Amino acid sequence: MEKAIILLSGGLDSTTCLAIAKDHGFALYTLTIDYGQKHVFELESAKKISKAFGVKKHCIIKIDLAQFGGSALTDSIEVPKNRSNKKTEIPITYVPARNTVLLSTALAWAEALNAFDIFIGVNALDYSGYPDCRPEFIEAFEKMTSLATKASVSGKKFNINTPLIELTKAEIIKLGNKLGVDYALTTTCYDPNSNGEPCGFCDACFLRIKGFKQANLRDPLYYQSK
Amino acid sequence: MEKAIILLSGGLDSTTCLAIAKDHGFALYTLTIDYGQKHVFELESAKKISKAFGVKKHCIIKIDLAQFGGSALTDSIEVPKNRSNKKTEIPITYVPARNTVLLSTALAWAEALNAFDIFIGVNALDYSGYPDCRPEFIEAFEKMTSLATKASVSGKKFNINTPLIELTKAEIIKLGNKLGVDYALTTTCYDPNSNGEPCGFCDACFLRIKGFKQANLRDPLYYQSK
Repeated sequence: MEKAIILLSGGLDSTTCLAIAKDHGFALYTLTIDYGQKHVFELESAKKISKAFGVKKHCIIKIDLAQFGGSALTDSIEVPKNRSNKKTEIPITYVPARNTVLLSTALAWAEALNAFDIFIGVNALDYSGYPDCRPEFIEAFEKMTSLATKASVSGKKFNINTPLIELTKAEIIKLGNKLGVDYALTTTCYDPNSNGEPCGFCDACFLRIKGFKQANLRDPLYYQSK
Repeated sequence: MEKAIILLSGGLDSTTCLAIAKDHGFALYTLTIDYGQKHVFELESAKKISKAFGVKKHCIIKIDLAQFGGSALTDSIEVPKNRSNKKTEIPITYVPARNTVLLSTALAWAEALNAFDIFIGVNALDYSGYPDCRPEFIEAFEKMTSLATKASVSGKKFNINTPLIELTKAEIIKLGNKLGVDYALTTTCYDPNSNGEPCGFCDACFLRIKGFKQANLRDPLYYQSK
């Protein structure tokens, strides 16, 4: 049984990714990075989801990117609400080099574990305009991994799997639904209240709500605004 | 004044790198990663060195790679002693994907800080056989940074500076000596005693001792073995 590391934030996309990796028959190792996000509630979701999927191991690694600042997700900058989904500008919720840090940490675990598959739920279609969600970035990262590790000697190759990259949010939800994902366990909101209830108006909520609507499925989350 | 992030372990190479960045006229920002190394003594050296150089800011970021294991530097595996300097195999002191994680974290800070220069003291000549110390890796990483960040939109470019990559250990020491580095502040050993005194026999000590000898300079450190 081949091992796979799945980057699991606790959100809708990464949980669907986990279901896909399971469906492919991988032994599942989930990795959650506590990078100082204000929406720390998602760490609890990641724990519950890992348990529900019966993963071999769930690692939570703390990397305090909040020390560097520069993002509404880690800093005292307010999370923007009621934005239309513009792809032309990089929003303030972008966390500098976050996906590079996440993938590098996953690579470290993969190499120590002798795993060659890493799953990340990036999405270039219904996305928030982040540069590190695009196929060009993933390809460059994957190329680098062969030179960065023992793979440079062994001739083995790491695969950065991005099964959601070309899907719409509605397609992701339909796929997850087919694979039996319980989306009630997931968190999406950048700015939930202290009970973990999503705001309903940030970019992440906007995309999720639109996705469920287009998929013609019921979102099991309870929104503060409803 | 352009800003530069210098990855500072507290060792001889990274301290020489810091002196080079200073000599180039950069505003200095040092970054130390506490990755769970057993030779945690080097964090104290990094603090003293940052102070001695009057850096703008010194960040210490904890990333517990020890959770993943797989290296004599983080795990309960014994640090090998009295090895000749073989380049043909990757030693057990190699930490899986460490330099990828270090550089990614430096990239995160650089982007948040609007800095475009990162210094890392990797060395491909008098090195320990690590894959992530070679020019091919650095080039692939640098290429990836332009796609991973806002630089993909702004057209700016990150430089991963590796001024030591083609130097022998003796040349590094001579250069640092010329730039006024106080090597008494640095730590090199993978397996120091509780007073921080180097063992004199691990790969890192072996290369340092040989370097000072070839440079015809006195190593100010006190070795346990002497």
